[in-house]
Amino acid sequence: MTERTTITRLREKASTERAELDKLLDATRVGHFAVVAPDGHPVVIPTAIVRDGDRVLAHGSTGSKWMRALADGAPTCLAVTELGGLVVARSAFESSLHYRSAVLFGACTPVGEDEKQDALDLITEALLPGRVAEIRRPSDRELRATLVLALPIAEWSLKVSEEWPDDPPEDVAGDAWAGVVPLVSSYGAPRSTPDLRTGIPVPSSVRDLTIANGDKAR
Amino acid sequence: MTERTTITRLREKASTERAELDKLLDATRVGHFAVVAPDGHPVVIPTAIVRDGDRVLAHGSTGSKWMRALADGAPTCLAVTELGGLVVARSAFESSLHYRSAVLFGACTPVGEDEKQDALDLITEALLPGRVAEIRRPSDRELRATLVLALPIAEWSLKVSEEWPDDPPEDVAGDAWAGVVPLVSSYGAPRSTPDLRTGIPVPSSVRDLTIANGDKAR
Repeated sequence: MTERTTITRLREKASTERAELDKLLDATRVGHFAVVAPDGHPVVIPTAIVRDGDRVLAHGSTGSKWMRALADGAPTCLAVTELGGLVVARSAFESSLHYRSAVLFGACTPVGEDEKQDALDLITEALLPGRVAEIRRPSDRELRATLVLALPIAEWSLKVSEEWPDDPPEDVAGDAWAGVVPLVSSYGAPRSTPDLRTGIPVPSSVRDLTIANGDKAR
Repeated sequence: MTERTTITRLREKASTERAELDKLLDATRVGHFAVVAPDGHPVVIPTAIVRDGDRVLAHGSTGSKWMRALADGAPTCLAVTELGGLVVARSAFESSLHYRSAVLFGACTPVGEDEKQDALDLITEALLPGRVAEIRRPSDRELRATLVLALPIAEWSLKVSEEWPDDPPEDVAGDAWAGVVPLVSSYGAPRSTPDLRTGIPVPSSVRDLTIANGDKAR
């Protein structure tokens, strides 16, 4: 816990539970990295993230200027935010959102050539479990063209907003409704690519994903 | 179009259509603002955003250090990202995500006292259309405690990734499936708050939202 990870606003929403942080990182596909450009301006880079133990992995092209800046150890902040629903209070002032929101501070290091392949497999499996066994291995050229970054999970803060509306007594006594409208994400039916050769069925990785998420959404 | 909004990577995904930007801003509830802290480290602030013509509005507490920094005109970058699904290619290398992603650069200005109420109504209506007519007006104390920020839509870039997998011929000739798995968001059934007085029905704003989004998800 450092000065910049000490939550001063809405303290009651702060969580220092590492398990809660991991739950958020594992459930979220996209994170937002910020870096400071040479001109002093902040820049945000959205990218897929995957947790690997005590670090967060991200990957991109070696041709990306901002990925290279991150690989070079530019100080960064990674925000991971999951929206859970609308908090509909009896006033606009008390209305808000359900969310889980983490920020991590630090610097990335590039994952070495010797562990790049494993890290990429882990990313593939996190996005689509079972997929690695269904596809060919990456080529050397593909591995060389890919940058994998690791941000240590060391300096972080987490806010969890999952409460009911907190209206003052005079509003509770009034006629306005209050409650929560949950927001749910789910995968829809898979669509085969137009150039798919005939006779190739939807693989089990994709079937399992859409079934699992369909259940969750209901 | 400036140097920092000129997309150098994946140029074919760049869009300069303002209508496309507006579509993304209007469909997305959360944006990520970055600012540079006094120690030079970047910081990301996730917050609800609403487009108002040629500007993006965000609001928060006057007690929030980062909201105050934004109000003071700190150079900022706002990222707005919408995930659309998984692009499942025949290799890990070509697999990716469907997304719509905008970054806006500039500085915020605080919305003045004379237009704060209108701006807050607009935010309320964007999150839950019809809600303003169902609730009481904000008090002077509430208005004073709320900071509303406006970021001009002036310097921005947009990337849209909505293509099919782009596998090389040797992979297309193979046995792996390829396609897209759409990711859909929808609102679930509203839950009344435990201290709701009896006899208060779910209001039309909430009913309309859940019906409209239920339809969209199917």
